[in-house]
Amino acid sequence: MNPSVWLIGAGPGDPELLTLKAVRALSQADVVLVDDLVNPQVLDYCPKARLVYVGKRGGCRSTPQQFIQRLMLRYARQGLRVARLKGGDPCIFGRGGEEAQWLADHGVRCEIVNGITAGLAAATACGIPLTRRGMAQGVTLITAHSQDGATPDWTGLARSGTTLVVYMGVAKLHDLSSQLLAAGMAPDMPVAMIERASLADQRECRSTLAAMAADAAAFQLRSPAVLVIGHVAACQLYGNADADLPLLDTVATALRRSA
Amino acid sequence: MNPSVWLIGAGPGDPELLTLKAVRALSQADVVLVDDLVNPQVLDYCPKARLVYVGKRGGCRSTPQQFIQRLMLRYARQGLRVARLKGGDPCIFGRGGEEAQWLADHGVRCEIVNGITAGLAAATACGIPLTRRGMAQGVTLITAHSQDGATPDWTGLARSGTTLVVYMGVAKLHDLSSQLLAAGMAPDMPVAMIERASLADQRECRSTLAAMAADAAAFQLRSPAVLVIGHVAACQLYGNADADLPLLDTVATALRRSA
Repeated sequence: MNPSVWLIGAGPGDPELLTLKAVRALSQADVVLVDDLVNPQVLDYCPKARLVYVGKRGGCRSTPQQFIQRLMLRYARQGLRVARLKGGDPCIFGRGGEEAQWLADHGVRCEIVNGITAGLAAATACGIPLTRRGMAQGVTLITAHSQDGATPDWTGLARSGTTLVVYMGVAKLHDLSSQLLAAGMAPDMPVAMIERASLADQRECRSTLAAMAADAAAFQLRSPAVLVIGHVAACQLYGNADADLPLLDTVATALRRSA
Repeated sequence: MNPSVWLIGAGPGDPELLTLKAVRALSQADVVLVDDLVNPQVLDYCPKARLVYVGKRGGCRSTPQQFIQRLMLRYARQGLRVARLKGGDPCIFGRGGEEAQWLADHGVRCEIVNGITAGLAAATACGIPLTRRGMAQGVTLITAHSQDGATPDWTGLARSGTTLVVYMGVAKLHDLSSQLLAAGMAPDMPVAMIERASLADQRECRSTLAAMAADAAAFQLRSPAVLVIGHVAACQLYGNADADLPLLDTVATALRRSA
C-alpha cells in the first residue's frame, strides 16, 4: 500500500541526482509541496500534480512549519497522494523526522525517500574524498548553530579526527573559525567552501581555517553553501594536473595560469 | 565530454535508491566492474555491458585493489567506457578518492557519481531521524576501526553531541561499547543495529550502549550492518503506535505483543 504522504529528498540541485524512488513518487503524487532549495527542473517529473510552494524564495517569509504540516494533513485526508519535496535528504537538517512524527501522531501513513545530501554532493563535485584513508577517520555533518540554540561541542569535533561538513554556515564563518581555532585545530587546516553544489553555476573557494572568513568575503560567498573542513579539503581529484599538491602550490599554480 | 571511467554509488541495496545519473552512466557503459555489496538487480540497468565481478562474495578472497585499478586503466585505454559500481557512495568508506586519484595520475578522466550511503538509508528505513532537533547536533559517519590502523578518538566523538553511525562494526561491537562507555557515554544510550538496510529482508535490533554486544549476539546480527548510536536511535517514525516512546516502554510493548 502506498503511503498518503511522501517526504522526498530532491538532492542537492542537479536533477540527475534524484533517486528512481523519488521520481516514481513524484509521478504518482496528486499534490506536491515544494520547499526552498528545490531545483525547479525537478518538477518536470510531476507535470500533472498541483504545485504548492511553501519556501521563502523571492524574499517572502517562510511558510510556518505548523501551517505546512496542517496542509499535508488536509490533503491526505481528502484522499490525495501528497509529496513533500525538500532539498537534500529529508532527515539531514531537513525536519523530516518532525514532520513524519507529526503525521504519524495524526494517523497518516508517511514514507521518507532519501536524497543525496548537499554536503556529500558538494565534496564529490569538487573532487574531495571526505573519508580518505590516512586523512580522515570519518565525516561529521553539522550546522554552525543548531535550531534549538545549543552550540556543537567544537572541542570534541576538532579532536574527533573526522572531516567536518558544515551546513548553513555562511553567516557564521568568523565564529566558526574562532571556535575551531580555540578548540586547537591548526590555523592552516584546509577548508573548501562550495556554493550551489552540483548546479551548473557551482563555485568553490579553497582556503584555510584561519583565512576562511576573509577569503569568503573576497570571494563573495553566498548561501546556499557548504563548508568542508579537514585535511581532505586540500584534495582535487578528477584529472587535475595539480591534484593533491599542497594547497599553497595549487594556489601558486592557479595564479601563474591566470596571469 | 563523457569521462572514461565512472565511479558509481549503487546505494544501499534497494535498486530504487539508484540516482538517475547512475542509471544513465550504467546504460552507457561498455564494461561494468561490480563490487561487493551491490544488489544484482541493479545490473538490470546495464543489460549489454560486459560484467566483471571484483568482490569477495561467496567466500573468495577480495580482488586486490591494485589489480582492480589496473583493470580499469586497461579498459579505459582500449577506448571502452568503464563503470565501477560500488555499494553506497564511492567516497564514504568506498576508496573512491584513491581510485579517482590513481586514474587521474595515469591521465584517465573519471567522474564520481554519488549514491545513497548505507548509514543514512538504514536510519531512514527504520524511522530514525539522524539529526533531529533537540536530540542531536548532527551526525558522524565512522568505521569501528580505520583501514590505516588508527583508532577514532571516541572521547571526542562521545562529547560531540552528534549521532554516531558506525560502518563495518559487527565484529567490533564489544570493543566499540567498551570504548564509548570509557569515553563517558551513558550505558543506556539508545542503539539501533540494522542489517541489510533497505532490502526486503532488512532486520533491525534496538538496544543500548551497554547491552549492544549481547543483544546483537542473541539477534545473530550479521554483516553488512550499520549501527546508529545516540538519542535518536530510540525513535520509530512511520505511523508506529509506539513511536518515540522511551525505549524500555517500546520494548515492553513489543514483548507483550509477542507473548
